[in-house]
Amino acid sequence: MSKYAAPLADMRFVMFDLLKVEALYARLPGGEAATRDIVDAVLDEAAKFAETVLAPLNASGDEEGCTLDKASASVTTPKGFKQAYAQYVEGGWPGLTAPEQYGGQHLPESIGAPLKEMLDSANLSWGNFPLLSHGASEALKQHGEEWQREAFLKPIVEGRWTGTMCLTEPHCGSDLGLLRTRAEPNADGSAFGTHKISGTKIFITAGEHDLTENIIHLVLARLPDAPAGVKGISLFIVPKVNVDKTGKLGTRNGVSCGAIEHKMGIKASVTCVMNFDAAEGWLIGQPNRGLMAMFTMMNTARLAVGIQGLALIERAYQNSLAYARERLQGRSLTGAKFPDKPADPLIVQPDIRRMLLTQKAFAEGTRAFSYYAATLVDRIERSPDADERKRADELLSFLIPIVKGMLTELANECTYHAVQIYGGHGYIRESGIEQFARDARITTIYEGTTGIQALDLLGRKILQTQGVGLQHFLKEIGAFCEANSSDATLAEFIAPVAAAVKEWGELTQAIGKRALANADEVGAAAVDFLFYSGYIALAYFWARSVAAADASAQSAQFKQAKRDTARFYFARILPRTLAHAAAIRAGADSLLAMPDEQFG
Amino acid sequence: MSKYAAPLADMRFVMFDLLKVEALYARLPGGEAATRDIVDAVLDEAAKFAETVLAPLNASGDEEGCTLDKASASVTTPKGFKQAYAQYVEGGWPGLTAPEQYGGQHLPESIGAPLKEMLDSANLSWGNFPLLSHGASEALKQHGEEWQREAFLKPIVEGRWTGTMCLTEPHCGSDLGLLRTRAEPNADGSAFGTHKISGTKIFITAGEHDLTENIIHLVLARLPDAPAGVKGISLFIVPKVNVDKTGKLGTRNGVSCGAIEHKMGIKASVTCVMNFDAAEGWLIGQPNRGLMAMFTMMNTARLAVGIQGLALIERAYQNSLAYARERLQGRSLTGAKFPDKPADPLIVQPDIRRMLLTQKAFAEGTRAFSYYAATLVDRIERSPDADERKRADELLSFLIPIVKGMLTELANECTYHAVQIYGGHGYIRESGIEQFARDARITTIYEGTTGIQALDLLGRKILQTQGVGLQHFLKEIGAFCEANSSDATLAEFIAPVAAAVKEWGELTQAIGKRALANADEVGAAAVDFLFYSGYIALAYFWARSVAAADASAQSAQFKQAKRDTARFYFARILPRTLAHAAAIRAGADSLLAMPDEQFG
Repeated sequence: MSKYAAPLADMRFVMFDLLKVEALYARLPGGEAATRDIVDAVLDEAAKFAETVLAPLNASGDEEGCTLDKASASVTTPKGFKQAYAQYVEGGWPGLTAPEQYGGQHLPESIGAPLKEMLDSANLSWGNFPLLSHGASEALKQHGEEWQREAFLKPIVEGRWTGTMCLTEPHCGSDLGLLRTRAEPNADGSAFGTHKISGTKIFITAGEHDLTENIIHLVLARLPDAPAGVKGISLFIVPKVNVDKTGKLGTRNGVSCGAIEHKMGIKASVTCVMNFDAAEGWLIGQPNRGLMAMFTMMNTARLAVGIQGLALIERAYQNSLAYARERLQGRSLTGAKFPDKPADPLIVQPDIRRMLLTQKAFAEGTRAFSYYAATLVDRIERSPDADERKRADELLSFLIPIVKGMLTELANECTYHAVQIYGGHGYIRESGIEQFARDARITTIYEGTTGIQALDLLGRKILQTQGVGLQHFLKEIGAFCEANSSDATLAEFIAPVAAAVKEWGELTQAIGKRALANADEVGAAAVDFLFYSGYIALAYFWARSVAAADASAQSAQFKQAKRDTARFYFARILPRTLAHAAAIRAGADSLLAMPDEQFG
Repeated sequence: MSKYAAPLADMRFVMFDLLKVEALYARLPGGEAATRDIVDAVLDEAAKFAETVLAPLNASGDEEGCTLDKASASVTTPKGFKQAYAQYVEGGWPGLTAPEQYGGQHLPESIGAPLKEMLDSANLSWGNFPLLSHGASEALKQHGEEWQREAFLKPIVEGRWTGTMCLTEPHCGSDLGLLRTRAEPNADGSAFGTHKISGTKIFITAGEHDLTENIIHLVLARLPDAPAGVKGISLFIVPKVNVDKTGKLGTRNGVSCGAIEHKMGIKASVTCVMNFDAAEGWLIGQPNRGLMAMFTMMNTARLAVGIQGLALIERAYQNSLAYARERLQGRSLTGAKFPDKPADPLIVQPDIRRMLLTQKAFAEGTRAFSYYAATLVDRIERSPDADERKRADELLSFLIPIVKGMLTELANECTYHAVQIYGGHGYIRESGIEQFARDARITTIYEGTTGIQALDLLGRKILQTQGVGLQHFLKEIGAFCEANSSDATLAEFIAPVAAAVKEWGELTQAIGKRALANADEVGAAAVDFLFYSGYIALAYFWARSVAAADASAQSAQFKQAKRDTARFYFARILPRTLAHAAAIRAGADSLLAMPDEQFG
């Protein structure tokens, strides 16, 4: 069976030494409460919950899956999930970062990052039940009317209800412009401005379950007079059980789960076909501006899915490492390292170390990267300084597709290495290792595929905004390099980072020029550009990690381990940018030349 | 549901236009029978069998899996598997390339390559039942006594029995030196030199099943006086049902299936724990030389597993392409390509084309590569010219780890792309797509992990032999470049191939030098070197493919498609060697620096 122990030491290093959250929280309104003691206590309690309650349900949840009773359209979650959710609510976790006025503790958003990492490392499927609640909360917080927040946000913050995001339809996934679900205003003025929502949504995570008494669906649909395409989509609140304006539960609404999917992985996370049959729903935000409201949820959800990637990398690494230390097989090529044993442990093999260090470099590097992104959310939501809010917003918008795309792709790589390190035993379900690879496979798809993230990054976030977010990031990295330019012990990292960011800027400009002549150059470069950007971003966070460790009160061994891992990253991982840069420079021609009919 | 249509046109191109098998077969003893008509007929019949009999059982086999009845220790294969096997035997397929004297048709070995590709594309799990028979046949053919061939080889060639390879034990996988299974000679001189074999083997593919009346296990075990380690391992023939010297069936032998594994994929391929309890067995080959005899089987099996990789790449590509043409989602960034439809098909998106072309370039490139390797087997087995046999043997030994390692890794990449192209639908079991990714995952592990292949390549096949196989290959590529140096239409491919092989030689020498100082440099470079070598080998086969197409009677469209795909390969895939070369040059330091206890 696979194990999990929360990597609290590295989490604390990232939070306190690298990101200096103590100072950050102290100056943000509402952040004063988040003292080091409080943050420490949150981390300890979250670790205990993840390790002792969620982790033991991971393999059994995968084996058992969720079941749908067709007659009652009710879904039963795997054994232990409901009790674990009750403990989660009991512990006050749903409201950790939510506003106090709706029952939350209003701690800074970035405290949610390690919590989320731990829940997902322990049990990704289970983590998907609260995940969408968070997205729904954000949408309600930012776009809901006051009564909507009172009626819907409060119970979600308290954990009594959960939320969903209902976007996809059978014929429309990435292309929401095609969606057909309809919303008819109730002509009699009944209730308080309700609409009748009708249509079918698919791939709805946590669309139906037995954890809570109600589920709040946020549903994209078209009003009768809506323009075609994405400009005619509105967002509606559709509860599973009808509620009045005060949130009191009434009768079942016209929404039900028609089927659940049988998937490659995250088998304990229920994926529903949801049928809306004239279900009552309330418009949230402006008519025909639903996509904008949905983007609010998406940003949050994309960061969260990026953290799912980190979570799987960490879990894969822990187990790979334990196995590589235990499993005796073969001898070191330089002579037996453990002559008293029948064979040396796998970890003496350089290629096993290559895979382990790849996982370690990605686990710690993406932790720094994604927690950093989470601190931008703190700044956006709480900074009293409008310039800081604006910069953080532009920077985060730019970074989100990299975090989501890169961390999930790396999760697939790292869980792949985990199976490989385990060898034949990793392919056997009993080991619990192959589950991580199956679970990871969805993360590059849901909340927007890697291709969609890449187009968002290069098209919307760079070319359409003259690269404002990229400029902020390059400037920040430049300042870091400048500030450390006289530190000889950092030179080995600063120099390649400085060279990389220079090339990053130039390459981006070159793509921009080519894109003016042919828009397909964007799509042709996008995914390679995302990887390229991701590897450079991680190089920056590795250089920063070494600098932060050196400047910290961490042990000499800790500092040396950061340095050794960074050296590995710069020597063996960062050169991947060479291949991506070459592919980008090759341009679109070789992708476009072949006539469609000649493909096969 | 996923589909399969045998890619006969490309198979014929590779066989006839690229590898010129007509001329080759005509000059090899026993090959005269393999005229173009015969080869064509074999391909057509194999395609029909794969498409209509095996492919329809692929998803159902995955869903149903094999079942073990504990009481009788008998395994039931999924619905239809037994009937399909009977048809396979009926068609004379098991003996296609086997010697006539044992009931085979003695066609050249390389005709087995497209057959194997088709079986595995259609149904990888099913393909594993005959797979090991082939390895057992080879071992019997090359190391068996005459009576052993009569008694065991004939029924296998006829398909009445199947074979296994029993190597792995719970504590020993890659490190066979640790194995404990024992063989005690029967002191009373009973039977005809039998031994009593006792021990437990795991991960035994097709160790027990209901397809045939007997199963011949080839088992590695230690004789009582055997030296420790790999030099004390002998190979034994252990039938499931006892046989006399003429092959007549007797009572059940002391071998039984104790358990079957629940796996990530290839669920219809049974993976057994086999218990040997004083089972009767005959020594095959010399005492303590079992590993050598097993290597005979391994070479064949590794080429076969490489072809499994090709098979999955082809299947993944076909389905990805069909979906990319059908699925309407989004618009081309350069304006609607199909304005009459609600959206453009996915195939207009450059990034989708990137993934499709990657699959196509790998499918066709690895087909050329692996079929080429199979023609080396023809030369080794049949050439009357000792020099040709020797060269082919040295070349094949060098290429086998690249074929096995590279094709299986690429199969994982391509099945990954397939899921990605399908998006959320690819993650749903119903689509049949995620099965390919799960099935592919075992191929980089069994018959020696990629790490083992890489060490075999760089350590044994290059450094220990002064690179004799590599030299042959570089010389062959050099001759090809030279012969085509005046063809201006090929210059865009010849120049980078020539540059790559030059660097390949230099890089190999540099590693060799470093390895003299530190043996761990081999392990540190090995996997990157395997990928690096594989990408260059594929570049060579792509250049050859364009040249062969141009010189052939294929249609102008066919020639252009080869050229377009080659251009894609050179522009967007070959640059991956940059990253691998940089990682190789970085050396072992960054892998070795970290003390084991600092990993986590």
